[in-house]
Amino acid sequence: MKELRIIATGGTIDKVHDTRTEALSFRSNSESHLSQMLKIGRCYFPVVEVLMLKDSLDFDDADREAIFQTASNSAENALIITHGTGTMDVTAQFLDGQIPDKTVVLTGAMRPFSLSASDGDFNLGSAVIAAQLLESGVWGVMNGRVFPAGALRKNTALGRFDD
Amino acid sequence: MKELRIIATGGTIDKVHDTRTEALSFRSNSESHLSQMLKIGRCYFPVVEVLMLKDSLDFDDADREAIFQTASNSAENALIITHGTGTMDVTAQFLDGQIPDKTVVLTGAMRPFSLSASDGDFNLGSAVIAAQLLESGVWGVMNGRVFPAGALRKNTALGRFDD
Amino acid sequence: MKELRIIATGGTIDKVHDTRTEALSFRSNSESHLSQMLKIGRCYFPVVEVLMLKDSLDFDDADREAIFQTASNSAENALIITHGTGTMDVTAQFLDGQIPDKTVVLTGAMRPFSLSASDGDFNLGSAVIAAQLLESGVWGVMNGRVFPAGALRKNTALGRFDD
Amino acid sequence: MKELRIIATGGTIDKVHDTRTEALSFRSNSESHLSQMLKIGRCYFPVVEVLMLKDSLDFDDADREAIFQTASNSAENALIITHGTGTMDVTAQFLDGQIPDKTVVLTGAMRPFSLSASDGDFNLGSAVIAAQLLESGVWGVMNGRVFPAGALRKNTALGRFDD
Repeated sequence: MKELRIIATGGTIDKVHDTRTEALSFRSNSESHLSQMLKIGRCYFPVVEVLMLKDSLDFDDADREAIFQTASNSAENALIITHGTGTMDVTAQFLDGQIPDKTVVLTGAMRPFSLSASDGDFNLGSAVIAAQLLESGVWGVMNGRVFPAGALRKNTALGRFDD
Repeated sequence: MKELRIIATGGTIDKVHDTRTEALSFRSNSESHLSQMLKIGRCYFPVVEVLMLKDSLDFDDADREAIFQTASNSAENALIITHGTGTMDVTAQFLDGQIPDKTVVLTGAMRPFSLSASDGDFNLGSAVIAAQLLESGVWGVMNGRVFPAGALRKNTALGRFDD
Repeated sequence: MKELRIIATGGTIDKVHDTRTEALSFRSNSESHLSQMLKIGRCYFPVVEVLMLKDSLDFDDADREAIFQTASNSAENALIITHGTGTMDVTAQFLDGQIPDKTVVLTGAMRPFSLSASDGDFNLGSAVIAAQLLESGVWGVMNGRVFPAGALRKNTALGRFDD
Repeated sequence: MKELRIIATGGTIDKVHDTRTEALSFRSNSESHLSQMLKIGRCYFPVVEVLMLKDSLDFDDADREAIFQTASNSAENALIITHGTGTMDVTAQFLDGQIPDKTVVLTGAMRPFSLSASDGDFNLGSAVIAAQLLESGVWGVMNGRVFPAGALRKNTALGRFDD
């Protein structure tokens, strides 16, 4: 079975509630919830790498280049990139066609894992399977759907990704 | 994209804590948590059918025959059967080869959804994707892995399904 | 035993996470979580009244006058007012000495009940007991402490109320 | 303000779900959830002592004698004893009148803290305030009510303590 690496880049899935500001932010530059989420899912095998923890609305091409380099240089040929929902489609199209020999799945959450009742657990479980079953290419997997890079769209009105 | 039906048969994923007995049981004969879990996963499209809510250790061939009939007669060709972990392998092998034209994915949880920190959300997200991507046949999808019917095994010592 | 009324005015305890804005807001003008919190606490007897649901930083004297009138006119002589932490001290001092024949307890939360791991359940349980045991007057009860109206202070640096 | 000690003896409040047996048990002989519950309540000042972690249905007079000795010898004059609900009334009456100079509050939960939607947070917040406000004696504080030792009764049918 495929070796699987999860590359964390931040986004809502990894945000926490800051009681002082009442805003969502990250615990630190490097503390991701992904290992805890995998433990809850009783899924022991993926390698987790925290590349950065940023709101994807703040991503620039340097960030996307860093994601591309990390993905290209990874030893595994099945990759999950956790990413903010705001520009997941932009990064998917940035990577599309550039990593021909790997299956790259972007996922994230509309509601932070740390706030309970998050779609993050569901999406991460989806992405772990999709990364093992989909052919090489760049895909988005959110809310029960698989989207080719070019067809990934956030439906802000409905608060989910769908067709 | 494939139409998807989820057939609930019970198991730990749907159990609740009974404060009087301090044991796990079902809220009723028909109340499943699956619709709430799909809502949390922001996954709106699957059809949910509650066939029965039983501990799979109590299943007999009549129960498995009912599952077979329900699966065979469903209009959708992508099916998820939520099932107790105790005899998930038995039911998978009972169904194996009997439903040639459909993709049938068995899943469940080691810890009830209602108790928080459950693997149920992760597994359900996994199963929803697997049912859309896997070819026809009977599969088990648990804890991030896809198992052909004949290879599905619960690792009781580790508290998960794995190779 | 004393009859007890809980008057909801909003504040963090009743806020929810808005997936669209990623900010905290209220579900509506009238939907409080207090009845659900009491059910979880298995505490069936208090009367819950939703007066308003506002961030206490937005309170003006008209809001505080409305709170005063509602408290003064309530039939019960044990009252809890759920309130935002930002100006809980201002409202406590506004009410102090004005409702001589009732025990008035202000409480709330630093983290919303809806986000899990909230101090709201703990504080509500504290306030329910305090309203039954304290003598007439205006009090703040937060994070395990009882504060006379004039001594109520939020410690923003520590994210709690204390001495 | 009074110094406060919390003495853990076990009970449902500290139980966890064992995925292997699907029964409720304790994580170990010494791991209580009380410190985590106080942290969630943002209540930093009580001293926590784990005396034992047992189901109170298994308590014998030796266990109750150990509780009595620990309570009697504690430096603080405000004490909380977390206790199983099954025989909380028996222990309350065992201690009643034996610790004249301290306020002793027994509390616990109908549903484990570790299972979410527990009454434990609410009850612990209640007990922390009751231990500071009540006069010397032995009391039970559950589900928003204060009971003198002789009047403490579990209502098994309703799943709570009340009058």
